[in-house]
Amino acid sequence: MTTSASTTSVGQTTTPYEGLIGLAREAALLGSTASLLNWDQQTMMPPGGLAYRSRQLACLASLHHGVLTDPRLGEHLAGCESDQALMADPTGPAAVNVRELRRLHDRQRKLPRSLVEELARTTSLAQHEWAEARRDSDFARFRPLLEKVVALLRHKAQCLGWPADGEPWDALAEDYEPGCTAAAVEAIFGPLRERLQGLLGELMAGSTRPSDALNELKLPIEKQQKFVRFVAAQIGFDFSRGRLDCSAHPFCSGTHCNDVRMTTRFQQTMVCEALGSTMHETGHGIYEQGLPAENIGTPMGESVSLGIHESQSRMWENQVGRSRAFWSWCHPKLAEFFGAAVESLSLDDVYGGANIVRPGFIRVEADEVTYNLHVMARFDIERVLIRGDLKVSEIPGAWNDAYREYLGLEVPDDRRGCLQDIHWSSGSIGYFPTYTLGNLYAAQLFDKAAADIDGLFEQFARGEFAALKAWLNEHIHSQGQRYRAADLCKQVTGKPLSADPLMRYLEGKLRPLYGQ
Amino acid sequence: MTTSASTTSVGQTTTPYEGLIGLAREAALLGSTASLLNWDQQTMMPPGGLAYRSRQLACLASLHHGVLTDPRLGEHLAGCESDQALMADPTGPAAVNVRELRRLHDRQRKLPRSLVEELARTTSLAQHEWAEARRDSDFARFRPLLEKVVALLRHKAQCLGWPADGEPWDALAEDYEPGCTAAAVEAIFGPLRERLQGLLGELMAGSTRPSDALNELKLPIEKQQKFVRFVAAQIGFDFSRGRLDCSAHPFCSGTHCNDVRMTTRFQQTMVCEALGSTMHETGHGIYEQGLPAENIGTPMGESVSLGIHESQSRMWENQVGRSRAFWSWCHPKLAEFFGAAVESLSLDDVYGGANIVRPGFIRVEADEVTYNLHVMARFDIERVLIRGDLKVSEIPGAWNDAYREYLGLEVPDDRRGCLQDIHWSSGSIGYFPTYTLGNLYAAQLFDKAAADIDGLFEQFARGEFAALKAWLNEHIHSQGQRYRAADLCKQVTGKPLSADPLMRYLEGKLRPLYGQ
Repeated sequence: MTTSASTTSVGQTTTPYEGLIGLAREAALLGSTASLLNWDQQTMMPPGGLAYRSRQLACLASLHHGVLTDPRLGEHLAGCESDQALMADPTGPAAVNVRELRRLHDRQRKLPRSLVEELARTTSLAQHEWAEARRDSDFARFRPLLEKVVALLRHKAQCLGWPADGEPWDALAEDYEPGCTAAAVEAIFGPLRERLQGLLGELMAGSTRPSDALNELKLPIEKQQKFVRFVAAQIGFDFSRGRLDCSAHPFCSGTHCNDVRMTTRFQQTMVCEALGSTMHETGHGIYEQGLPAENIGTPMGESVSLGIHESQSRMWENQVGRSRAFWSWCHPKLAEFFGAAVESLSLDDVYGGANIVRPGFIRVEADEVTYNLHVMARFDIERVLIRGDLKVSEIPGAWNDAYREYLGLEVPDDRRGCLQDIHWSSGSIGYFPTYTLGNLYAAQLFDKAAADIDGLFEQFARGEFAALKAWLNEHIHSQGQRYRAADLCKQVTGKPLSADPLMRYLEGKLRPLYGQ
Repeated sequence: MTTSASTTSVGQTTTPYEGLIGLAREAALLGSTASLLNWDQQTMMPPGGLAYRSRQLACLASLHHGVLTDPRLGEHLAGCESDQALMADPTGPAAVNVRELRRLHDRQRKLPRSLVEELARTTSLAQHEWAEARRDSDFARFRPLLEKVVALLRHKAQCLGWPADGEPWDALAEDYEPGCTAAAVEAIFGPLRERLQGLLGELMAGSTRPSDALNELKLPIEKQQKFVRFVAAQIGFDFSRGRLDCSAHPFCSGTHCNDVRMTTRFQQTMVCEALGSTMHETGHGIYEQGLPAENIGTPMGESVSLGIHESQSRMWENQVGRSRAFWSWCHPKLAEFFGAAVESLSLDDVYGGANIVRPGFIRVEADEVTYNLHVMARFDIERVLIRGDLKVSEIPGAWNDAYREYLGLEVPDDRRGCLQDIHWSSGSIGYFPTYTLGNLYAAQLFDKAAADIDGLFEQFARGEFAALKAWLNEHIHSQGQRYRAADLCKQVTGKPLSADPLMRYLEGKLRPLYGQ
């Protein structure tokens, strides 16, 4: 069964490349529509809409799969691949689009349509069930749907297959970080964990610690909303091409570069979290808005990978938003937005407060040192889960063990434990490690930006963020999928990805704050 | 080219009726998705999203058309139609679904897919252009896109055809009111216009008039928002299955019965308009929420026609919301919501203020007498426009002439003239008369409800609206498309549609208020 909404009229001659791009753009229309429905489900949809929404999403997923597996797409691809002139420049737009669409087409063809539909329907329902279960800290409620999601994902991994030296997790991670394997992640995470835990011990034993005054402030949520919108606009989010709303789990959904939907969340005592989460999503949003509009609906108009995406969000959240330069601009702004409530806070208080290191239960509230330990715990669990060596019912226990071992914490309940993140409910197994990859990419890319741009921190201190945004636009965003993540890193920074920039950055910033 | 997202797996045997319903439900998934995208465009979408949104809508329209014109759907229909057992009860669910899907299938097959796509794309763009042009009262800006819309609609009418004694307008009106023709509308409108103009003259010459104090009040929009949400919930809108937002032009979009999106709008001095517009849309919303969920995605789960839909919105807005009984409940509520600002208003003031009759420029702000004159002016214009006897550039002149003739007004600018309504920009020519049909149905149906329900107005006075809602649920909403509009009217009221109930209702209510 083929599906075609907007291919050219019968009789009109098109080249294989034109045919290919036409189908890619059609798939993107359906994909972006599904993305909007997902955004709506998280932000706007009344609870009664759930059951039918899951069917709408299953229908769109099925049509999307239908376009990507269309035999004509395969014929167009073959036609393009045999056209030497078209493929001459391997990083030119045509060759890149052909390369990435070939990857997508081959991958999608391994998946039965019924599985694609079932995954879309089930994850839509499971996300809702997760939100309810999280609210009530009731893992038992979530368990049946999570079991169904995991079973579907294990089936998906089987369909996709993995190399002889790989494992099922690899098949799923490919959706988020092409070429990423569990073994490669393990090779990075092992030594990084030791270095991070070493730094954590060092800081905790330090002779001083930053003031917590900022984090203890109760600030009205309405004022926080105005404040974080102001910061998002200031660092470069274009509100004429996007929105900022609230949701249980903050996210950024790039339906396309001219309509980017971000969300954040607020708590009375956590202005830093609302700000951090907003700057994080704004980093994603600026990436999406910086994708080349002329390539919309094709790989050359899409982001490289989640690791690179996360490098953008984490850079704005951390390298920018937790820098002393940023706070020397932002400190007086706090007074403008919150008045007397913040007047006793010094610059040291707010800069320090944004950089408190403290093992905690919640990943998205974590400092930069412990953040990656949260990720590692999740990776360990989902890896054995998808291999079949851990049952869904065993997740809470495994989670709590991991938090004891990695962070030295006794998890008090599942709400603050294995129910805290939306990812598994949405079928996103293989996703978490991209957060840590993003931290590594962020540090390495930011070092290069800081070397390329004169007086970058002085600009931040004046509230000027345009030069960094322009640098990212040029080197990352406008490139679409021209390079895969590892190659992009080498192209831009001249070096393969390394954990050294992240560790140097963390040590350089945090040791002085902790009197080390 | 066929399209199928969710038909049953190959090899599974289905009856023609099951096959038919499967395709109908698939079309409905796509239609409801498009409906959500339209809602989002009017309420949430940032301006940058427009161009791509129009392409998403064109893609969905094309796929929707693809399902409805699928040759398999035709085969299933033929199979059903020859199954005498299935069709035995002509108002049973199966026969109704077959009847209405046959109508849709035959109609859609007359339309080229390219036209369907082009209409969806163009009207999405035109709605945005209309909103901008309206804001600036700049008809010249809107003209090129409106010309394109009209040309596409004229082409659409040509494709669909009309009976020898009919005209192009009939072909388009069929989308909104099956069986409705310009000649039939004219036959109703002619005498009705005379009676309404007669009543208007009588009232204007009356010895007294109601207080305008309610309409002159400046009330904070935030408080108005809370107030109208309260009323919407009180009269029966279920917010767990729907939303109320703001938009330039209020509307109700039933993406499906468990997710109904309504909008309203606010002005500082027009609490009556915000209330009326909200009760109006709530009437639509209650209809949509009352459709039988088990028939979702099939004609038996859908509303009869826009005329019947409008009867529901107008009944709650007028027969309920402009009744003395309603205001005797609502009057103290005003004080609760608006405090001191309203304390000087008596029940007579608010009941009278809600029933001021006064020719004005804006249809949606019009009283119940002049409202239909607004509709008649639009019908006259769109009828000749679609026949080709009026150019788009001549609309402002024709509009202003009609307002002079029907309402005795000199239209000061196009914002308050031919740019006030969204309908033509969205391609909805043939739609306006359903508003007046709705007024006629509302009066006739309400008479019957009031006869059937003991103490209906006493209930209103106590803030109880459940009995009316239940009566409408039973007699109208739960019936889906079992009957066409005219038959439904006869079934429920025992009589064919007549203008007498509306005129009796208006005369009975308004003469006393105007000392006649």
